[in-house]
Amino acid sequence: MLLKENIPVLYILGKIKKELILVTVYSVLIAIMYNTFHVTRISIPIAVPTILGTVISLLLAFKSNQAYDRWWEARTLWGAIVNDVRSFTRQLLTFVDAPYHEGERKAFVDRVAKRQIAWCFALSRNLRKQDPLHGLEKYLSKEDIDYISKYDNVPVAILELQGADIRSAYKLGWINEFQQVALDETLTRFSNEMGGCERIKNTVFPVTYAAYIHFSILLFVLMLPFGLIEYFGIVEVPVVIAIATSFFLIESMAIHLQDPFENKPTDTPTITISRTIERDVVQMLKEKEKYELAVAGGGFNNSKMFYIL
Amino acid sequence: MLLKENIPVLYILGKIKKELILVTVYSVLIAIMYNTFHVTRISIPIAVPTILGTVISLLLAFKSNQAYDRWWEARTLWGAIVNDVRSFTRQLLTFVDAPYHEGERKAFVDRVAKRQIAWCFALSRNLRKQDPLHGLEKYLSKEDIDYISKYDNVPVAILELQGADIRSAYKLGWINEFQQVALDETLTRFSNEMGGCERIKNTVFPVTYAAYIHFSILLFVLMLPFGLIEYFGIVEVPVVIAIATSFFLIESMAIHLQDPFENKPTDTPTITISRTIERDVVQMLKEKEKYELAVAGGGFNNSKMFYIL
Amino acid sequence: MLLKENIPVLYILGKIKKELILVTVYSVLIAIMYNTFHVTRISIPIAVPTILGTVISLLLAFKSNQAYDRWWEARTLWGAIVNDVRSFTRQLLTFVDAPYHEGERKAFVDRVAKRQIAWCFALSRNLRKQDPLHGLEKYLSKEDIDYISKYDNVPVAILELQGADIRSAYKLGWINEFQQVALDETLTRFSNEMGGCERIKNTVFPVTYAAYIHFSILLFVLMLPFGLIEYFGIVEVPVVIAIATSFFLIESMAIHLQDPFENKPTDTPTITISRTIERDVVQMLKEKEKYELAVAGGGFNNSKMFYIL
Amino acid sequence: MLLKENIPVLYILGKIKKELILVTVYSVLIAIMYNTFHVTRISIPIAVPTILGTVISLLLAFKSNQAYDRWWEARTLWGAIVNDVRSFTRQLLTFVDAPYHEGERKAFVDRVAKRQIAWCFALSRNLRKQDPLHGLEKYLSKEDIDYISKYDNVPVAILELQGADIRSAYKLGWINEFQQVALDETLTRFSNEMGGCERIKNTVFPVTYAAYIHFSILLFVLMLPFGLIEYFGIVEVPVVIAIATSFFLIESMAIHLQDPFENKPTDTPTITISRTIERDVVQMLKEKEKYELAVAGGGFNNSKMFYIL
Amino acid sequence: MLLKENIPVLYILGKIKKELILVTVYSVLIAIMYNTFHVTRISIPIAVPTILGTVISLLLAFKSNQAYDRWWEARTLWGAIVNDVRSFTRQLLTFVDAPYHEGERKAFVDRVAKRQIAWCFALSRNLRKQDPLHGLEKYLSKEDIDYISKYDNVPVAILELQGADIRSAYKLGWINEFQQVALDETLTRFSNEMGGCERIKNTVFPVTYAAYIHFSILLFVLMLPFGLIEYFGIVEVPVVIAIATSFFLIESMAIHLQDPFENKPTDTPTITISRTIERDVVQMLKEKEKYELAVAGGGFNNSKMFYIL
Repeated sequence: MLLKENIPVLYILGKIKKELILVTVYSVLIAIMYNTFHVTRISIPIAVPTILGTVISLLLAFKSNQAYDRWWEARTLWGAIVNDVRSFTRQLLTFVDAPYHEGERKAFVDRVAKRQIAWCFALSRNLRKQDPLHGLEKYLSKEDIDYISKYDNVPVAILELQGADIRSAYKLGWINEFQQVALDETLTRFSNEMGGCERIKNTVFPVTYAAYIHFSILLFVLMLPFGLIEYFGIVEVPVVIAIATSFFLIESMAIHLQDPFENKPTDTPTITISRTIERDVVQMLKEKEKYELAVAGGGFNNSKMFYIL
Repeated sequence: MLLKENIPVLYILGKIKKELILVTVYSVLIAIMYNTFHVTRISIPIAVPTILGTVISLLLAFKSNQAYDRWWEARTLWGAIVNDVRSFTRQLLTFVDAPYHEGERKAFVDRVAKRQIAWCFALSRNLRKQDPLHGLEKYLSKEDIDYISKYDNVPVAILELQGADIRSAYKLGWINEFQQVALDETLTRFSNEMGGCERIKNTVFPVTYAAYIHFSILLFVLMLPFGLIEYFGIVEVPVVIAIATSFFLIESMAIHLQDPFENKPTDTPTITISRTIERDVVQMLKEKEKYELAVAGGGFNNSKMFYIL
Repeated sequence: MLLKENIPVLYILGKIKKELILVTVYSVLIAIMYNTFHVTRISIPIAVPTILGTVISLLLAFKSNQAYDRWWEARTLWGAIVNDVRSFTRQLLTFVDAPYHEGERKAFVDRVAKRQIAWCFALSRNLRKQDPLHGLEKYLSKEDIDYISKYDNVPVAILELQGADIRSAYKLGWINEFQQVALDETLTRFSNEMGGCERIKNTVFPVTYAAYIHFSILLFVLMLPFGLIEYFGIVEVPVVIAIATSFFLIESMAIHLQDPFENKPTDTPTITISRTIERDVVQMLKEKEKYELAVAGGGFNNSKMFYIL
Repeated sequence: MLLKENIPVLYILGKIKKELILVTVYSVLIAIMYNTFHVTRISIPIAVPTILGTVISLLLAFKSNQAYDRWWEARTLWGAIVNDVRSFTRQLLTFVDAPYHEGERKAFVDRVAKRQIAWCFALSRNLRKQDPLHGLEKYLSKEDIDYISKYDNVPVAILELQGADIRSAYKLGWINEFQQVALDETLTRFSNEMGGCERIKNTVFPVTYAAYIHFSILLFVLMLPFGLIEYFGIVEVPVVIAIATSFFLIESMAIHLQDPFENKPTDTPTITISRTIERDVVQMLKEKEKYELAVAGGGFNNSKMFYIL
Repeated sequence: MLLKENIPVLYILGKIKKELILVTVYSVLIAIMYNTFHVTRISIPIAVPTILGTVISLLLAFKSNQAYDRWWEARTLWGAIVNDVRSFTRQLLTFVDAPYHEGERKAFVDRVAKRQIAWCFALSRNLRKQDPLHGLEKYLSKEDIDYISKYDNVPVAILELQGADIRSAYKLGWINEFQQVALDETLTRFSNEMGGCERIKNTVFPVTYAAYIHFSILLFVLMLPFGLIEYFGIVEVPVVIAIATSFFLIESMAIHLQDPFENKPTDTPTITISRTIERDVVQMLKEKEKYELAVAGGGFNNSKMFYIL
């Protein structure tokens, strides 16, 4: 999760240590060949690795861009989930109306709003291939958990339950037909956001490109010592390592960014976001009833309000 | 289909083997001319191919970007199809209501939801220029198949059937006027997604650009041996092959990515996606009735619910 | 029109032949000056044209990107027109309902749907500054043609007629108020797509940029022979021509792509698209009535359907 | 305004003449120092300005892209205004209905439609910091002008008047509740387009970037003569001027593009667009009544139409 | 805040002074080593830093792009807030209708509109981690402030109050069901805009990339003096400083742009924007009643208007 505190550079440096060791051995060998055994015909003009370097730079820029876009889209989708859960809760609180069954109304709003929190946690775990049902008993009734545990895709099942409850509310006359359609549109947005996350999760960056870029960097690193040996001698080794590290690091970071639901430090912080959602929703639910009274005693002539109803 | 398992690098390497053989022969000939027959005036400064190399790198970056965008748009469209089929099924389950004809209602929802699965498979096959009717008898009635087989564009015909059935449901009073418009909007989204896929299928990447880029790479590869011969002698051959492979591979990969509906390993995995859709929809349909009972015995005072209906 | 069959490279090569002849003459003259008259002080280091070459490459990449975006947006707008005409026809078929005037209903749907085909052809011709009324008598009544011929912008007039007919249908009770608003939204989308095409047609790529890029390429080509003459002698001529061709070709292709409604081979294929639209709409209209019967005899208890109406 | 006729290259060349004179004097001085006073130690390798040249090229490409995006967004917003005014007029003509007050209805539609034309002109002048009320008496009543002249933001005031009139029409029963909401959505789109233009107008391109790019180009131009002097002698002067002109011109063009509402030749042609809007709206209003009759005598059985009303 | 007046180049130059001092000391030391102690083997070919320079240029271009996009998205979100507050106020003024309670209606519209201004200021302060309640007593009642002060996220609480008041208005019959849904959609847009700002605030640019880019520039600057020392001697010092300043400045500016809610001079000017919103809303509220009269005496037959009501 990319929060400000953790700087996983060392973590990523660890991921390329195999490549770095190989490059070190390789360039030391060439320096020895050149300096000790005087195999000097192997020097090549620096312009040759330069051409390759330009191509690879552009490919890495391309790959970084696409990886960043995937990562940012994943973040944006979870940002949209935050917005839509807030809007959904607000709609539940302001749309649902059961004049003679205030207790049932409150229970209904509570159940549906909490089920949406459960959906966030289930989606988060589902994307990471963890058990999506873990920890949901805090937000869902026993019946709900039984029901959704029969489904392959748990978040889809939760959204179906939401739809069924909104249908029931409509049939009971607690919401009108416009409000039903408006709530259904919000469910559709949840469906789209879930689908967007699944798309990012299930679509790999074209493997041909990935393999090719890795192969090009390798080719470049293999050529580099020959281009530098003439000028540097043994000093060539740290220079080659520094430049090789540069290229491998960019590649490695792009690979980490492009898959944001893999239990890595660079993931989209879906659990943290879900907690924020939970905090906001719970505050909206808990305080609600008190506010109804505040308003009643405040700006409006509330006797009239109940009369009209 | 770009799933994680298959790495079709060799597959793509096969596509450029003709070019590679030609480049090998060509650069060997020049090395022989230079080393054996001492035609040494042909050497040119490496800066000349470098200028061309920069231009070509930028053109390949441009082409890779557009190809990736087409491929990603195709994937996004199919992701949207997943979302909208789920939403459509949820809408059918929660909107349609026929108090005294529960059996007919269920048959109706089943038929319309399955027809939408058929639409996914038909669209998938239609985009690949295969027989779109193949295998649809699993999801469609005999009459439906007869009807749609008269159309040039089968998915359009299926959407028309969906519209006709929603019209019938509205006339029968099973959905209200808002729900009809909401379902019609979902059909419009299907229509847009289908049109988007057709657009990508039917629009070629500007052929002038494609031809030009190929021609530039050729020019560059033809010049390259002259720029390197002075420094390398016969060692020039593998260097030219390596650099030429780089450029031809990027070009080749962009060409493969840019047309994602052509029965190639890099295609958008439309069949796999359609299967996922089928799984989710079938689960939503099969379990639905049981849940109605679960809700009835659960949170609501269901005697009242049936009373109000 | 960019269909797969035609590869207009030669067509475009023809467009830059004037420049190529000038470049040939120019570089031959310099070679003669250098080799015959031994004016050797004119040689400049190759690094100078290289700096300019990098700048021009980036500018050409920028220009190619914008040109491609315009071209792709034009294609996307026409793709959206295809989708919306299909959706509009479906809406007409499923929304309009005149229980006791089936014949008039059918005539109405036919007239409005065909008028939308006419709109596609009129828009296509209007964008190309051709007579937009040409050939519309196939789809429009005499009165309609008289009416729209008084307008400067014929597609706007056709959309106005569509609005008037939908208003009439609403007044007659053939569509309800939601359906009127839904159909009006579809008309608004047609209006937006038309406006988008007009925007692309009427907005030139910033002429200062275009003129400047041309001027920079010229400057670069003028410098190039001086940079190469020292190494090549007379062989410099084909190299200069090859590189100059590269730059002029990219510029020329961008210019062709960026204006997609100009009667050129690289245009958006609006006529082909309009024909596809016509085919789909005609099939939807012709077969419709037969299907009503098929449904009636199929899944539904149709006696009840007419009873409820 | 970027129309096809005017090519303001000379206009822009004029903007950078100060820089060009300074560069000329500066490079002449260095050439004299080198050639006459033989201060030859000042020559530097051409590779140093080349590194800076690459960085500046990328920064200029970045800046050109952002400037183009701003300019294109401004153009797109005005294109959307064209579309929405057309749609708004169509909605007024087809939604508003006052069976027994045809004269008042026509006066109402005329007034509201013309007020929207006034909004276009007022917005156009407001963005350019000109008096927004100039010339509006052609489209607005005396009362309207008195009212809006009290506002700081005149286009906001005009939209408020539109809202008030639509409210009145709804209260009078001339439009139904769906139509009111649909018209309100169109007003919201106008509000968004106005806000988008104001955003572009009021947001400067980050001044730090702008200042920095200018400073880098200066640094580059100051270094350039030292890099070239060794090879060229006095011929260095025109080469430096040519390259400096290239960089200053791109910068200058980006600066001109990025602010499209400043009374410059490269502005978005808001007045021309407003005239086109006026032409279309006036034609739709003038011809409308005649068409009502044409339809009445045409396809419909119009006696029935009035009967149903 | 990026307004036209302030050019915080010096401000930013101050941010990199530590780096500049280190670079100066470092390059002076190398020049002394080379010139005084004649350690001449340390010179390296300029081509080596050039390769790194190209990679870094592309990475900085990538980073500048993403930083600009974040900054521009933040600005666009606040532009959308301006638009939506204006639209919301217009909707309040034209939707709410309480025939026999004009005074209460006016008080209601005033309260809700001003509460939206409070939301803008609270959001602005909340994003900057300042006390969001500061100064809100100007726009909110005592009860409202008590209520929202119990929430962690104050803007969410304000939107909840808005929803509660709209619900009350609907229950009182002051707005109809369509208008309730339309107003709710506007609230949803506010929720989305707030969420978008929070996303930008809470998501750091991938720290691995940021750390890596800094490390690469450092590597490049450390190598640079070795590449230049051979040609320049002591003159190398200012050249190294100039080039190092270039790279550090771009990096520094990107870092400043990418976080637009941090109390820096480059922030999105949320307070200025909120003031503009306040000005427009207050003018719309104050003048409204006078206009009702103006309309009444103007175009309409107002006796009829009140009669129909």
